[in-house]
Amino acid sequence: MILLLSDFGLEGPYVGQVKSAIWARTPGVPVVDLFADLPAYDVQAAAYLLDAYRSGFPRGSVFLAVVDPGVGGARDAVAVEADGDWYVGPDNGLFALVVRRADHCVVHEIKWRPGHLSASFHGRDLFAPVAAALARGDTSGLAPRNGLQVRGAEWPEELPRVVYVDRFGNALTGLRAAAFPPGAGLQAGERTLPRVRTFGGVPVGAPLCYENSNGLLEIAVNQGSAAAELGLTVGSPVTVAA
Amino acid sequence: MILLLSDFGLEGPYVGQVKSAIWARTPGVPVVDLFADLPAYDVQAAAYLLDAYRSGFPRGSVFLAVVDPGVGGARDAVAVEADGDWYVGPDNGLFALVVRRADHCVVHEIKWRPGHLSASFHGRDLFAPVAAALARGDTSGLAPRNGLQVRGAEWPEELPRVVYVDRFGNALTGLRAAAFPPGAGLQAGERTLPRVRTFGGVPVGAPLCYENSNGLLEIAVNQGSAAAELGLTVGSPVTVAA
Amino acid sequence: MILLLSDFGLEGPYVGQVKSAIWARTPGVPVVDLFADLPAYDVQAAAYLLDAYRSGFPRGSVFLAVVDPGVGGARDAVAVEADGDWYVGPDNGLFALVVRRADHCVVHEIKWRPGHLSASFHGRDLFAPVAAALARGDTSGLAPRNGLQVRGAEWPEELPRVVYVDRFGNALTGLRAAAFPPGAGLQAGERTLPRVRTFGGVPVGAPLCYENSNGLLEIAVNQGSAAAELGLTVGSPVTVAA
Repeated sequence: MILLLSDFGLEGPYVGQVKSAIWARTPGVPVVDLFADLPAYDVQAAAYLLDAYRSGFPRGSVFLAVVDPGVGGARDAVAVEADGDWYVGPDNGLFALVVRRADHCVVHEIKWRPGHLSASFHGRDLFAPVAAALARGDTSGLAPRNGLQVRGAEWPEELPRVVYVDRFGNALTGLRAAAFPPGAGLQAGERTLPRVRTFGGVPVGAPLCYENSNGLLEIAVNQGSAAAELGLTVGSPVTVAA
Repeated sequence: MILLLSDFGLEGPYVGQVKSAIWARTPGVPVVDLFADLPAYDVQAAAYLLDAYRSGFPRGSVFLAVVDPGVGGARDAVAVEADGDWYVGPDNGLFALVVRRADHCVVHEIKWRPGHLSASFHGRDLFAPVAAALARGDTSGLAPRNGLQVRGAEWPEELPRVVYVDRFGNALTGLRAAAFPPGAGLQAGERTLPRVRTFGGVPVGAPLCYENSNGLLEIAVNQGSAAAELGLTVGSPVTVAA
Repeated sequence: MILLLSDFGLEGPYVGQVKSAIWARTPGVPVVDLFADLPAYDVQAAAYLLDAYRSGFPRGSVFLAVVDPGVGGARDAVAVEADGDWYVGPDNGLFALVVRRADHCVVHEIKWRPGHLSASFHGRDLFAPVAAALARGDTSGLAPRNGLQVRGAEWPEELPRVVYVDRFGNALTGLRAAAFPPGAGLQAGERTLPRVRTFGGVPVGAPLCYENSNGLLEIAVNQGSAAAELGLTVGSPVTVAA
């Protein structure tokens, strides 16, 4: 299975071009859109989301992750083997948390290059073919890097800011719930958000925080929009309440 | 074939997580996104849309429908067998119209539970695995309920309000065209909307209502936005003009 | 492989209904969403985009293209065979550029009609079944037209306006980069946009134009939104700077 994560947007041809590039090379491989709307250009948010959302898939999955403001410039292309899965994309910090937290990990440089490489769409021209190859077990275009160095090594263990806002206006943070005491709520701006198990733990219209279904602390309003009502956007700082 | 209907949003990881949960269990089954953007939390709108949009698919299809503001609280999980197809989701009214209008129907309770059930994402953890099982003919996790009781039994036969606004600003109602005289238009606010067969039946820029391709009365403006020009949103009341 | 291009919107059931109509007839054929959000009703923009984005797919692909403001009225339904691929949709100009630029081309009229043809959704009822048939090599519903006449023959070779705005606010034009000198920038409103190879060719926040990954001249702002900062929308005129 290949999982796609990018900031290409749901709109337009980009995700479709990536998919057809995969299927042209590895027909029939299941391809799942996980995130097409990662925050634009925000490599750090993507890195924490990728790590949180990489669980629950069949062993041997290939994560094709592209948030790549430096496309066409100088940055390496890597394929990371971590805990039996593969992660393919630019070496710009996107895989920092996966590498740091994996039990078993090898970082490979992508040596293969396509016959034609556009300046602006390495997702389609370079990373999709590599992901397609890895999905059928072909690692011939890779060379293992010496050690586990990838960009983003200086980033914190837990990221105290909003990394994604979903359709409901729920604001996901880069904080893993398990890293904090079960009763600890969050502070966002001047608001303190009680920690509950599920939305129904507060009245309709009230704000809350909870451990979401992938283990991140998430800010919500029961049947309302936390983004609108608390003024949260990607990047808004949060702190863990004492 | 599995058809997905939800209010999860096109954005974010939710639909992708549901799909991969299906394919991990039933590889190769075709999965089609029918609605990812049902009106948020609006179970009633979803119920009328689901009934209108359930035709035209291969017999034996599985509709995985999740609009579930009460997730994590007390509500049953059901699988409805209706006219040779399956409907899987929460028993909160979502299947009221399907059950009422089906020629042959059995309501099953979902007894199976996953090893890990998150508090907030039963679509991925509970309903997707059940839909995947039903798509390959496995009904082992179900127990037939005595009778055809499901939530929403008191809802009207035709729902006189807007249930969905599409990309063009067309406003779908919960009224089936066949339930009214062919010449009957609609009243929305202070506007009377003539009933025509197709958009070209009125001048460019003029409002109209017509029987849409799934049998619902729909309000449109020829090459314009009915939502913007008539001030319609999900929930706006409509009446059938005499 | 079947590629879908339409102005149906990402939202709502339309693309899903088209996909299931295809898979009901040709199970297992790969179907890729290329554009679901072509500019609404803008047949001309779609025609230039279709021609630019039709490369890079496996030979024998079927492009199902529907931007069809005249649906339900009088316009022909066609299937164009061009350079080994198929193009299926309404004859309203959508295929003008494909026909004009193809090396080998035959225009076919679609004679087949479904048992039930809705007034407003020929994409699902007529074009999807034809595309599904062509994907398995069945051309029985077609009759070759005499000559290469399709609508849109009077349109210019290069279209000097914005035809699409993507998630990043990048504005794609209907101008092919290869038709102009490599150093020629663009003029949009009062701004002159230097031609560079990649976004990094200008400072962060500066506007630019470049040859995008499908050969069109595209206007962007490095890590910003050209649409917002330069006031560009679909239809905005551009000129090639001397």
